[in-house]
Amino acid sequence: MLKVPNHQVAGHQAGDGKLGPLVDDSGRFYKPLQGNKRGSNELAFYTSFSSNTRIPDHIRRFFPNFYGTQLVEASDGSGLQPHLVLQDLNFRRVKPSIMDIKIGSRTWAPQASEDYIHKCLKKDRETSSLPLGFRLSGFQIYQNRELGFWKPERTSFQSLPADEVKLLLRKLVSSNAYANLDSKPDCSFASIVYGGSTGILSQLLELKAWFEDQTIYHFYSSSVLIMYEKEFASNGKSPRAEIKLIDFAHVYEGQGVIDHNFLGGLCSLIKFISEILTIPDGCTTEASSKDIEKNQIYFENGTT
Amino acid sequence: MLKVPNHQVAGHQAGDGKLGPLVDDSGRFYKPLQGNKRGSNELAFYTSFSSNTRIPDHIRRFFPNFYGTQLVEASDGSGLQPHLVLQDLNFRRVKPSIMDIKIGSRTWAPQASEDYIHKCLKKDRETSSLPLGFRLSGFQIYQNRELGFWKPERTSFQSLPADEVKLLLRKLVSSNAYANLDSKPDCSFASIVYGGSTGILSQLLELKAWFEDQTIYHFYSSSVLIMYEKEFASNGKSPRAEIKLIDFAHVYEGQGVIDHNFLGGLCSLIKFISEILTIPDGCTTEASSKDIEKNQIYFENGTT
Repeated sequence: MLKVPNHQVAGHQAGDGKLGPLVDDSGRFYKPLQGNKRGSNELAFYTSFSSNTRIPDHIRRFFPNFYGTQLVEASDGSGLQPHLVLQDLNFRRVKPSIMDIKIGSRTWAPQASEDYIHKCLKKDRETSSLPLGFRLSGFQIYQNRELGFWKPERTSFQSLPADEVKLLLRKLVSSNAYANLDSKPDCSFASIVYGGSTGILSQLLELKAWFEDQTIYHFYSSSVLIMYEKEFASNGKSPRAEIKLIDFAHVYEGQGVIDHNFLGGLCSLIKFISEILTIPDGCTTEASSKDIEKNQIYFENGTT
Repeated sequence: MLKVPNHQVAGHQAGDGKLGPLVDDSGRFYKPLQGNKRGSNELAFYTSFSSNTRIPDHIRRFFPNFYGTQLVEASDGSGLQPHLVLQDLNFRRVKPSIMDIKIGSRTWAPQASEDYIHKCLKKDRETSSLPLGFRLSGFQIYQNRELGFWKPERTSFQSLPADEVKLLLRKLVSSNAYANLDSKPDCSFASIVYGGSTGILSQLLELKAWFEDQTIYHFYSSSVLIMYEKEFASNGKSPRAEIKLIDFAHVYEGQGVIDHNFLGGLCSLIKFISEILTIPDGCTTEASSKDIEKNQIYFENGTT
């Protein structure tokens, strides 16, 4: 029996007669294979990637497992439809805090159609993608038993400036991450979730090293998911902090060039997270470090 | 007495009554300070950068020295005009081979004017910038006493695909780099120019490490110059291989974010150069490595 996933934070969602992904009770995620180019391109990517012997295992683990395609009853009641069968990344996770981060200042490939480029460029300029090199595409932060999840509307965070995004990345790993944007996060899980030899930062750095070298694929409009479980962290257990790459409808061949667009955005995200770990008392010095910066930069920027 | 520089490979050039930079005989380079925003922005950058105590010395050496501004007789006969006084990067260089590489798949800042963005985006798409993350903006390769310099027109190399750009980067460090694009470069100076602890690759990696961290400046439409002297290399002496950053009319404040656009392009260039050093017999295996790649990637890319 398939059901609507509990912890989807971005993308089309099933329910209310709409088409969206489903999960089963054995850890599989069924993503509708749309009839357009996106569906066939994502299937082509998974097919290529899963059989590509040049992908090292320590990189392969950052991608969902792929189990082929299958005809299953679609969530919109349209009957049996082809679905990609993937790993359910939240299978057996307990109240996972999740951030979906679309990587790259540019979400379109040079060889995409004019209409698509125009649409994407407009959105990249309206959101954080262009200034930050990535944008938040969805998140849920588990707060505590009383408050449950904090899961705001996408439109409220897609276009946030750098300081607000840094604040959210701090709230993600705080025990007091209430919805009020003014509350100061305590970052009490930063070192156990972001830090350490198996933490999020280490995983992002492994991914970065691969992107500095690989010229096989270029990933446009793909996301990095950051996931962990706060209740485990609170009890001194492993928070099961993990990154995964998802959404491959716009992957293209690398043609002998690294994916400089994805790599640049990934490095920007890495800098955001490493600052949380390295700035002493990181959750409170934001204002003063900004003041220092302001005093030292005094050159004017014109409209050119 | 000021004169037209011998080894300028890109940008406005003096001579024939046109406005362009001049050099003196003591190692200074005079760049006309145009009355528009570009001139004032480049001056503001040099002023900020030269007094910024957060720039480490091993990074500062990659930038031209700045000696303020000075009124000098302009090359177009328009009388005394303000000029930026900079280090002449080719002072006392002997027949330098030079490549001017404009870094970044995007040459425009998010906050630039609509007209400027439109103009730059068009050019980024028409040239190598978008696919490669950088484009060749000018070069001269010293061949030998008989043939002198090979210095083709800019329009002939701005839009080259990856393979042709790799070939040019090989020709830059070859003893048989004749103008014929079909001749196979011997890469005989690759290890001494690109390689080693003080070579071009090491310098680019130092610059990269800084760009992974610094959030002070974002550099749009700036170039990395690669320079060395073939006659020294041929005689077993140091080829004086050096990189420099130039052209800062479109530098903006970083606002707490790394320059992911410049960094991505820089990493792409680094990959191009490291391939020359690491692929065995790098100057001849181009075709076969391409064939391997073609056989392993078989997924289709649609127009999305």
